[in-house]
Amino acid sequence: MTYAIGMKINNGLLFMSDTRTNAGVDNISTFKKMFAWTNEGHSVVTILAAGNLATTQSLISIFQGNGGSEQNLETTILEQNSMFDVAKSVGRQLRKVIQANSDAGQKADSSFHATLILGGQIKGDEPTIFMIYPEGNFIEVTSDTPFFQIGETKYGKPILIRAFDPRMGFAEGLKLMLLSFDSTIEANLSVAPPLDFQIYERDSFKLGASGRIEADDPYYNKISKKWSLALKTAFNSMPNLIIKGN
Amino acid sequence: MTYAIGMKINNGLLFMSDTRTNAGVDNISTFKKMFAWTNEGHSVVTILAAGNLATTQSLISIFQGNGGSEQNLETTILEQNSMFDVAKSVGRQLRKVIQANSDAGQKADSSFHATLILGGQIKGDEPTIFMIYPEGNFIEVTSDTPFFQIGETKYGKPILIRAFDPRMGFAEGLKLMLLSFDSTIEANLSVAPPLDFQIYERDSFKLGASGRIEADDPYYNKISKKWSLALKTAFNSMPNLIIKGN
Repeated sequence: MTYAIGMKINNGLLFMSDTRTNAGVDNISTFKKMFAWTNEGHSVVTILAAGNLATTQSLISIFQGNGGSEQNLETTILEQNSMFDVAKSVGRQLRKVIQANSDAGQKADSSFHATLILGGQIKGDEPTIFMIYPEGNFIEVTSDTPFFQIGETKYGKPILIRAFDPRMGFAEGLKLMLLSFDSTIEANLSVAPPLDFQIYERDSFKLGASGRIEADDPYYNKISKKWSLALKTAFNSMPNLIIKGN
Repeated sequence: MTYAIGMKINNGLLFMSDTRTNAGVDNISTFKKMFAWTNEGHSVVTILAAGNLATTQSLISIFQGNGGSEQNLETTILEQNSMFDVAKSVGRQLRKVIQANSDAGQKADSSFHATLILGGQIKGDEPTIFMIYPEGNFIEVTSDTPFFQIGETKYGKPILIRAFDPRMGFAEGLKLMLLSFDSTIEANLSVAPPLDFQIYERDSFKLGASGRIEADDPYYNKISKKWSLALKTAFNSMPNLIIKGN
């Protein structure tokens, strides 16, 4: 499993992903699932991947130039004229990789599917985020739905719904994503730190701050503990139900 | 979908379930999914059901005496000597109903499966809760895992994990379950009020307070709004991440 979020705020974009991959619970590893490229001054693109690791690694490898001249990073991503074109091109490539594996003769028990979050900005275009399905089609964030989640999305959704505000700053946005991850990590073994994050400042056309939050990161541990306490305090401050019933 | 919780606290047992059933999003209805029986002074049993409505209704109907003398409520539930025996007997009956439908010739797209939460107390035995699987086998609550959820369990789990305390009273327990339902209802259309609840006081051997919380219930609305605010306040009280990154 995986958990990853791409979020659009007024100031720009935020991305966070975990790094745990598993083939069964007895075979876990740490792999990066966040990839970012930039053609400074013109385009910045970040991809988060959930699903079959062979599929996503193969896809990323192609973008990095290992798939022949037609399919390399420049033509697929960095020299497009709009994020919509990038999403189309990445979606097409994703479908191709999945098909290539699916048609490969031997039948596998697990599926080759992968789902992507793709975000960034191209000069002349708005910063935006897409969610790309294994079929290669995609949807875009709107002001009604300003974030996408992929992988194990449910545990961490309630806090996102409740606390998201497009006017929040980057530090607050990262805090919110971290709390959403914390709820998920508490409940699902297959999502685990270290967590990678990346921010993109609107109209900067260069990669913003990025980093990796380790399991023993003091901020992460502090916020996890404080959040437990804060939730309990919030819970205790709620009025009790007067039980009349039957 | 469905969402239901059975929870054991030191003082007794608490149950809550929603009432929405759906066959596709364009065919929704309200059905009770909580059933309670008592042989006062000897036994009290509550069942919560998630899954195929035909299966669960058929099961309950059998317990209410419509399935021939061997399978009625008294012999299946109320005259057993322990909750373990009740769980065995209910599990066997559940498997029978599912098999009867599955073997019925015509192939259905949807499965006939159902999962149950079964809780109560029999004289001479501890109050306890079981989760019964479609296969008829079951697991019991322990002090490590003092509650079971069935149906759409993920959205509402983080707050249960964080705020549960076995020393809480019934009113607090209901409040906690209501907040867990609220998180789920915000995120999943197929879980909806009215919500049924039932409490059972340890060693009382009679049904405790029960009732139905409607969508326009003032307490429910107040707590839902106040919880949003309290979460935001808790969120704002967390320290921000100092972004150093790369």
